[in-house]
Amino acid sequence: MLVPIAPVGASDLRNMLIHPDRLFPAESSTRAIARRLYESVRALPIVSPHGHTQAAWFAANEPFPDAAQLFVTPDHYVTRMLYSQGVPLEVLGIGQAKVRDPRKIWHIFAKHYYLFRGTPTRLWLDFAFQELFELDKLLSGETADLYFDTIGEKLGASEFRPRALYERFNLEVLATTDSPLDSLSDHQAIRNSNWKAQILPTFRPDPVVDPDFEGFRENVRKLGELTGEDTASWAGYLKALRKTRSRFRAMGCAATDHGHPTARTANLPAVECTEMFQGVVKGNADAEHRELFRAQMLTEMARMSVEDGLVMQIHPGSARNHNRQLYERYGRDVGADIPTPTNYVDGLRALLEQFGNERDLRIILFTLDESTYSRELAPLAGHYPCLLLGPPWWFHDSPEGMKRFRERVTETAGFYNTAGFNDDTRAFLSIPGRHDVARRMDCAFLAKLVAEHRLGEDEALEVARDLTYTLVKKAYRL
Amino acid sequence: MLVPIAPVGASDLRNMLIHPDRLFPAESSTRAIARRLYESVRALPIVSPHGHTQAAWFAANEPFPDAAQLFVTPDHYVTRMLYSQGVPLEVLGIGQAKVRDPRKIWHIFAKHYYLFRGTPTRLWLDFAFQELFELDKLLSGETADLYFDTIGEKLGASEFRPRALYERFNLEVLATTDSPLDSLSDHQAIRNSNWKAQILPTFRPDPVVDPDFEGFRENVRKLGELTGEDTASWAGYLKALRKTRSRFRAMGCAATDHGHPTARTANLPAVECTEMFQGVVKGNADAEHRELFRAQMLTEMARMSVEDGLVMQIHPGSARNHNRQLYERYGRDVGADIPTPTNYVDGLRALLEQFGNERDLRIILFTLDESTYSRELAPLAGHYPCLLLGPPWWFHDSPEGMKRFRERVTETAGFYNTAGFNDDTRAFLSIPGRHDVARRMDCAFLAKLVAEHRLGEDEALEVARDLTYTLVKKAYRL
Amino acid sequence: MLVPIAPVGASDLRNMLIHPDRLFPAESSTRAIARRLYESVRALPIVSPHGHTQAAWFAANEPFPDAAQLFVTPDHYVTRMLYSQGVPLEVLGIGQAKVRDPRKIWHIFAKHYYLFRGTPTRLWLDFAFQELFELDKLLSGETADLYFDTIGEKLGASEFRPRALYERFNLEVLATTDSPLDSLSDHQAIRNSNWKAQILPTFRPDPVVDPDFEGFRENVRKLGELTGEDTASWAGYLKALRKTRSRFRAMGCAATDHGHPTARTANLPAVECTEMFQGVVKGNADAEHRELFRAQMLTEMARMSVEDGLVMQIHPGSARNHNRQLYERYGRDVGADIPTPTNYVDGLRALLEQFGNERDLRIILFTLDESTYSRELAPLAGHYPCLLLGPPWWFHDSPEGMKRFRERVTETAGFYNTAGFNDDTRAFLSIPGRHDVARRMDCAFLAKLVAEHRLGEDEALEVARDLTYTLVKKAYRL
Repeated sequence: MLVPIAPVGASDLRNMLIHPDRLFPAESSTRAIARRLYESVRALPIVSPHGHTQAAWFAANEPFPDAAQLFVTPDHYVTRMLYSQGVPLEVLGIGQAKVRDPRKIWHIFAKHYYLFRGTPTRLWLDFAFQELFELDKLLSGETADLYFDTIGEKLGASEFRPRALYERFNLEVLATTDSPLDSLSDHQAIRNSNWKAQILPTFRPDPVVDPDFEGFRENVRKLGELTGEDTASWAGYLKALRKTRSRFRAMGCAATDHGHPTARTANLPAVECTEMFQGVVKGNADAEHRELFRAQMLTEMARMSVEDGLVMQIHPGSARNHNRQLYERYGRDVGADIPTPTNYVDGLRALLEQFGNERDLRIILFTLDESTYSRELAPLAGHYPCLLLGPPWWFHDSPEGMKRFRERVTETAGFYNTAGFNDDTRAFLSIPGRHDVARRMDCAFLAKLVAEHRLGEDEALEVARDLTYTLVKKAYRL
Repeated sequence: MLVPIAPVGASDLRNMLIHPDRLFPAESSTRAIARRLYESVRALPIVSPHGHTQAAWFAANEPFPDAAQLFVTPDHYVTRMLYSQGVPLEVLGIGQAKVRDPRKIWHIFAKHYYLFRGTPTRLWLDFAFQELFELDKLLSGETADLYFDTIGEKLGASEFRPRALYERFNLEVLATTDSPLDSLSDHQAIRNSNWKAQILPTFRPDPVVDPDFEGFRENVRKLGELTGEDTASWAGYLKALRKTRSRFRAMGCAATDHGHPTARTANLPAVECTEMFQGVVKGNADAEHRELFRAQMLTEMARMSVEDGLVMQIHPGSARNHNRQLYERYGRDVGADIPTPTNYVDGLRALLEQFGNERDLRIILFTLDESTYSRELAPLAGHYPCLLLGPPWWFHDSPEGMKRFRERVTETAGFYNTAGFNDDTRAFLSIPGRHDVARRMDCAFLAKLVAEHRLGEDEALEVARDLTYTLVKKAYRL
Repeated sequence: MLVPIAPVGASDLRNMLIHPDRLFPAESSTRAIARRLYESVRALPIVSPHGHTQAAWFAANEPFPDAAQLFVTPDHYVTRMLYSQGVPLEVLGIGQAKVRDPRKIWHIFAKHYYLFRGTPTRLWLDFAFQELFELDKLLSGETADLYFDTIGEKLGASEFRPRALYERFNLEVLATTDSPLDSLSDHQAIRNSNWKAQILPTFRPDPVVDPDFEGFRENVRKLGELTGEDTASWAGYLKALRKTRSRFRAMGCAATDHGHPTARTANLPAVECTEMFQGVVKGNADAEHRELFRAQMLTEMARMSVEDGLVMQIHPGSARNHNRQLYERYGRDVGADIPTPTNYVDGLRALLEQFGNERDLRIILFTLDESTYSRELAPLAGHYPCLLLGPPWWFHDSPEGMKRFRERVTETAGFYNTAGFNDDTRAFLSIPGRHDVARRMDCAFLAKLVAEHRLGEDEALEVARDLTYTLVKKAYRL
């Protein structure tokens, strides 16, 4: 089982990429408290209720390819930073004219590794390099080959296959994110095998509820085919969604996920919904109309969640594909998503007026706009029974981001209106490192409260466990 | 006199809910400075220029009821948090079908006290439990009866009557908040008694200047009756307001308070005001029209403040009664107010263009939108002679909230464009605890400046006194 | 050469305005790291690529006048604070009826010096007072004459002339900010002299591209005269701008600077531009039209930067002359500029769609809206190759402001998408003090990363040098 190493003697620290006291406050009495708190949660199982790993990896259980294809090309944290400093995407293995030699890609990355100083990517990668691949010299142009070869060699070993790593990572639950059009055959294959892991799909309906999603109309048509419902009508469309949710639940799905551009919700009469649906499905709805449809669909999804118990996750506020040239050249995942100001107070009003006081509804809110933490999200979650706050998301999924989240949210919403940690990653090998950062930052925050006599250490021990394990299972009903 | 206990030996700390070093930075040299600064302000009188206690308590001087009615049912910080975690309001003594047994209510609260970990409510309550009621074990299901009985017994004693507590709390001034329709008979009764306390009304005209206030039109009619002015006309309405301000001033009133949804102000010609007034008073004004009327009324209030010297307090940016179901079922105070983004730079422009450079005008600004601290409020208060910044308000009236306020405001507006502390509370027994938190956080902030050689300790001692005592008296002309 | 003093023995510290450890974290191990990092950059040359000093000072090399004219009257940080506390501007030497006795002005300032406690102005001034004028008692009413006389005497000496100070300050580059209508004769005069300093103009086209700039239409006419182009036509106007940029480049200009009210950009067809230009140049464009013109001009400036290599600086988000009464009475520089919420994600879209992926374009973004650091600016700069982030600007050019900048920007954009420090000052004597604050705060930030094992100390030493020296030269192509 891979759990982060426990503190060791100073003599062992010289050749370490990651220090046992990393991320703990420097002040010695606070650090001592942080160590004790962390030690109590260090080896707890990882519950990962939201992420973007592929069920196919675990179904096939093939070895991962080389270092470049594992750590560089698919990781948009990495490719963004390199691109921002003038490295062409082709050199990173992206696009038509892409470089195909993984060692070359890896060298470019290694040479630019200094760009990640002070970023969470550096923390996650160094964790994996040391803890998984037993590397102990900093990645650079000089150590590039050593890294490439060491990683390549290990990836071939059976203990680096996806299922072995799942077990070694001490994962208790791992959720993927899936389109309503996905057959979930990989999930089925995992279930059919003898392997006893909990790998759960998540229902992400954006392709069939967002009129601006690529291929939306075709997707709605396919949804009809898959479900045997008439998705040309509003009623049939809703039935098709209900059926698909039910199919997902049968495969262990615990939650839905909604990546809308804004937090807007609407609650219109059925007549208007019918008419609006006709507009979007025929492709003659204008921008406001399409936004209103998305808004209505959040409320419809909430209604279905009240019925079927799926936990709703709302991830609003990202301007997708901001870089139009890149989007046109390389497609959806390279187009640079940039956060936008997000208004939850007005946006969520329609949904909350209808379902805000439902005890059986659970909605987990995320944000890319940190100004909403203390202004909107903590006051909302500190009042509405259906609301919980998800952990800091994406750009804020970092030590300082986690610190700001706890500092701005806790005093109004407390700890118990938050939903534990999500790693939200497509980089499977970064999962232990990401959870480790979250555990350390939560313990560092709690240690400060204890050191400043705002909380007893006995209580902090309880909270540390809750933030790491209990709350996430409760939030997602796992 | 109740002042927070001074630091004591470590052996006495074991049985304490609140530690003498609470809220001070853990780093030892900084903590030593914070202790010295705090010791210099610990026992200063409390000046409370803005709050929501009831003059009737001091007029009648009856004992407070039991622990549940004192600490749970009326405190929306408490009821919000419990409600957010699924506790029905009825169980907390709210609503038609409410639980009436205070011990039962108290037990529910005690069992959920862990929800308040990391919140200011916990700090305020533990302060009162220990310092006033001499309790020294943490509140929980197990200690619920001990608490309920101890508190109940003490509340019966004469030294726990409102007037005795006022004196024990070392209050020098206590302001209430009052409708223009209030007769102020309780304030008169206090004055008529021999008791020499300074309990002052505050003029809060929202019921008669906000067309969206429940009963607005009827309120304006009553204002006419009370003042003998024709409040069906714009001129008569303004006269009625002037007369009422004068009546308040005669009772010691120092300030007005304005709880508008936005910071918008307007400065329209009299003809337009007349017309607009007719619209709102006849109830046929639309939303924009009603907002414009409120905007105009802020400027009218400023004009009257220039004349009569009442200090203006503007508290904008709260979306009142966001939870419509609760509002409809339980009324105005349970409906969940949620902060909204607030724009002061454009909003206040009309008022400031007219009166911004008046040396006799004093306007104290509050916010629920912390993103405005460094962007708008500090630059405005660091320029306009009439503007001061009120302390962190409501959701931000907390250790981290106070820290953010000083960190974001001081470098642009300095200390001397701020207005000291407001406890803003309806929970009379929390007043010493709230002021204690503010004094500690200000001293902690100053101690950091001293430890980092950004300010001399002799100067910090002066500033600590100013923030605690001098500036609030100056700001409110007390 | 004036470089900040190195740490000295405790016995020497008693009579010091500024402490050798100022701004370093109090925690001893972190402070020790900060000292080592700072020591490595303390004496590096100052590169000042953006500011508001006058080339004329260096052309003429006359002595600076008295303390009041040097430190009080022209410094809007100083006059704002005093004005906010009721000091009339006339008393500070501003306006028709101004006080003309500099000693009187100085006394007023000295008496109010306590207002600057906790502000960066205090840090900058104390630095100059001690390091340049060898004063060691705090400025106050009592020490006012001592200060006035000491400063006055020294200013007369040859080593306090502008050129001597430039050398003593260890300046390597100093950029001024200049109108396209400026002849740059002072820059020419400096070049013509034997003095080997790098004093460079910056192209600030606001007077001829912002229709709301005072005298805009007349300015455009003059631009035509100066360049021999027909600035009554869109094509001629663009040619005139190109020619002027070329004239600036010939004088060493490295960058342009754009002080627009918003970050809005546009990219309209030539036909629409022609029409829009006719509207603004004839003075019959409405507010939206004028804003759209500014938006288009940012894109035009970007186009020209792609051609000629001038680095673009965009400084948006200031509501200029907010205090209309003061503006009307005292003019443009006294009218109080207040930051406004700024949207970069939508605002810059048109420009970035056209030029965002140009490797030869460099755009440095500044903000007065700190909520955009983590939400918009870091994600944008962490993706687009043409974007870099400028240092904290104006109200945020302060220890806490710098801390927030690094904390919110680094995790997404890294260090290498930032552009080093700008002092942005018109107060020449504050330059060393301002750079010293920036160096200390960057080292304090890095020391924390090292102490928390988020970065190796060897790497931090490299980053410290990069932030102080390397990145600014690279960003501005110096």
